[in-house]
Amino acid sequence: MNLPPPGLSLPHVPAAGLADFSVSVLAAVGVCAASRKAATAAMLHGSRLGIDSHGIRLLPHYVEAFSGGRLNKAPTLHLTNGFGAVATLDAGDAHGAHATYEGMEHAVRLAERYGIGAVAIRRSSHFGPAGAFAVKASERGCIGIVMGNSDSFVRLHEGAERFHGTNPIAMAAPSGGRHPWLLDMATSAVPFNRVQLYRSLGRDLPAGVASDEAGRDTKDPDLAEMLAPLGGAFGFKGAALAGMAEILSAGLSGARFSPEIPPMGGPDYTTPRNLGAFVLAIRPDAFLPQGDFEAGMARYLAALRASRPAIGASVLAPGDREWAEADSRAARGIPIDRDTQIAFHALSQTYGIALPAGLTAG
Amino acid sequence: MNLPPPGLSLPHVPAAGLADFSVSVLAAVGVCAASRKAATAAMLHGSRLGIDSHGIRLLPHYVEAFSGGRLNKAPTLHLTNGFGAVATLDAGDAHGAHATYEGMEHAVRLAERYGIGAVAIRRSSHFGPAGAFAVKASERGCIGIVMGNSDSFVRLHEGAERFHGTNPIAMAAPSGGRHPWLLDMATSAVPFNRVQLYRSLGRDLPAGVASDEAGRDTKDPDLAEMLAPLGGAFGFKGAALAGMAEILSAGLSGARFSPEIPPMGGPDYTTPRNLGAFVLAIRPDAFLPQGDFEAGMARYLAALRASRPAIGASVLAPGDREWAEADSRAARGIPIDRDTQIAFHALSQTYGIALPAGLTAG
Repeated sequence: MNLPPPGLSLPHVPAAGLADFSVSVLAAVGVCAASRKAATAAMLHGSRLGIDSHGIRLLPHYVEAFSGGRLNKAPTLHLTNGFGAVATLDAGDAHGAHATYEGMEHAVRLAERYGIGAVAIRRSSHFGPAGAFAVKASERGCIGIVMGNSDSFVRLHEGAERFHGTNPIAMAAPSGGRHPWLLDMATSAVPFNRVQLYRSLGRDLPAGVASDEAGRDTKDPDLAEMLAPLGGAFGFKGAALAGMAEILSAGLSGARFSPEIPPMGGPDYTTPRNLGAFVLAIRPDAFLPQGDFEAGMARYLAALRASRPAIGASVLAPGDREWAEADSRAARGIPIDRDTQIAFHALSQTYGIALPAGLTAG
Repeated sequence: MNLPPPGLSLPHVPAAGLADFSVSVLAAVGVCAASRKAATAAMLHGSRLGIDSHGIRLLPHYVEAFSGGRLNKAPTLHLTNGFGAVATLDAGDAHGAHATYEGMEHAVRLAERYGIGAVAIRRSSHFGPAGAFAVKASERGCIGIVMGNSDSFVRLHEGAERFHGTNPIAMAAPSGGRHPWLLDMATSAVPFNRVQLYRSLGRDLPAGVASDEAGRDTKDPDLAEMLAPLGGAFGFKGAALAGMAEILSAGLSGARFSPEIPPMGGPDYTTPRNLGAFVLAIRPDAFLPQGDFEAGMARYLAALRASRPAIGASVLAPGDREWAEADSRAARGIPIDRDTQIAFHALSQTYGIALPAGLTAG
């Protein structure tokens, strides 16, 4: 889980090679074509956009979860309840990316017919970067919104134990430009991998982002036992946003609530976790004449990017940093941290799959 | 706009008397029955739940906006685009509460037919407390979500000038109990009336919630020229949530974006402002068997309220504080600050309307 210290020279590997490796390993584990394709696509979204915590480094974790039986290698996903423009998807303990791409695909189909479509998903699992599924909707001309829950890791406002997961909220919107406007955020103050990075660097955390086992604020990453909700002194807002994600993803679907979900990190890799997710697709041209929405987005984003920055700083639209990183990584490849290199060597040997070009020297 | 210093004794006035006064004054100004009813209901939602910044103190402001012509006293609201489960509502420069109650009413009707309904609203105006319209949906058995934009008041992350409005996000969900789960938050770190309160108290602001005219953090409320987005050092999250509200409320409806909207505080009270709003209604029983959603909410909220609090603190679900305040105010009446008392006396004299019982001594 450790991120490399900045500046450490790492091998950079083309995305296509990583994707081939991932699909081949998952096939060797016995994972069905749809699941291995979806899991790989979501991980590569993370790796391409620089969201390495939710990138290809998750492959060894997913292999463990498929091998242990937590994840169903050949799941049957089926729509249960639902009428009109909504549906509930029972994902049959599928990989979360398979479940959520499938859910968004159905939401987009509903939006094409009704202007909007919503799918609540139960019996899902860790889906990787929430933005991957939102972007899928934007590629079809829709605004995509994705939320999910996960095992407890974040205290409540004025709370002293883990309650919500890091419950992400993502949204992608056609922007009138090359890439969609893209929000993909945890409702915690920081992601846990930030705490792990600070541990490895021996640095103090910013104030108000993590708490010790008694729920007291701590800057010591080694004492951090839980995350704070987004908002600092106004953490009731972050906790309520986590609640919004919780209610829509678990409440509407009948999945487990965060405190009921077994930990992602094991030791139990046999029991399905029954996470929830919620996906929404909205067709702008159901609200406005064709083209007006994207023209408005272009006007809004031009004004935003021209807004005066603080001295020495710069103002960005959500996603600008990630899409720039994607361009850079398309040219230079994706950096692979040491732990992941070691894990990939082990997977290569176990399953007899050639390492992607660029990792063979390690 | 000043909130009273804590502990100052204020007259407490029954909600019914305030509602009668508001409706009578607006009628005397020439405001149509639907608009005066809606504006009053939204203000009373704020006053009943303790959200005084968006409560009955807005009445003199609304009178000025109706009198000046910014607000249409007898608007024609009509659905323009839209198919299936969505619609766009042109509010004809109506009071924002009239526009948004009407929009939510239509969204609930759509949700009854399609499981979900969304309405984007343009040519609207300040709607008061966003939660009022979300609660309306929850009273009909739906989850209600409301967003809106407003004139620029909040800098971007690393920005140094006002860009987004305080763009609220509200959600209400049937809880299985007496009151809905209720989130109603600005996407700024704090509301501006908090800055004004600190000015009147001569106290320092918390760090990271406001900036001076150069966009530098300031704790001096007299230097505060703009608000920071929610999230402190992670203000890109708050700015992106403001963007979500902006895109759905203005982008989808064709309303103005925040930087294009004339200031709420005048001096121009003649020109309509063309704010946007977005309302969403979701029927839980389209996703799950009848009763399952509320049973889940009851289980979730019981776990949340039992989560261990920090020493000397307490853990609350979103809305718990507000609904408790509503119970207290139902018994004791609604406190009316000095500025509002003075303004109500002036309205009483101008329009020949008797003051509500409890304010006559002032």
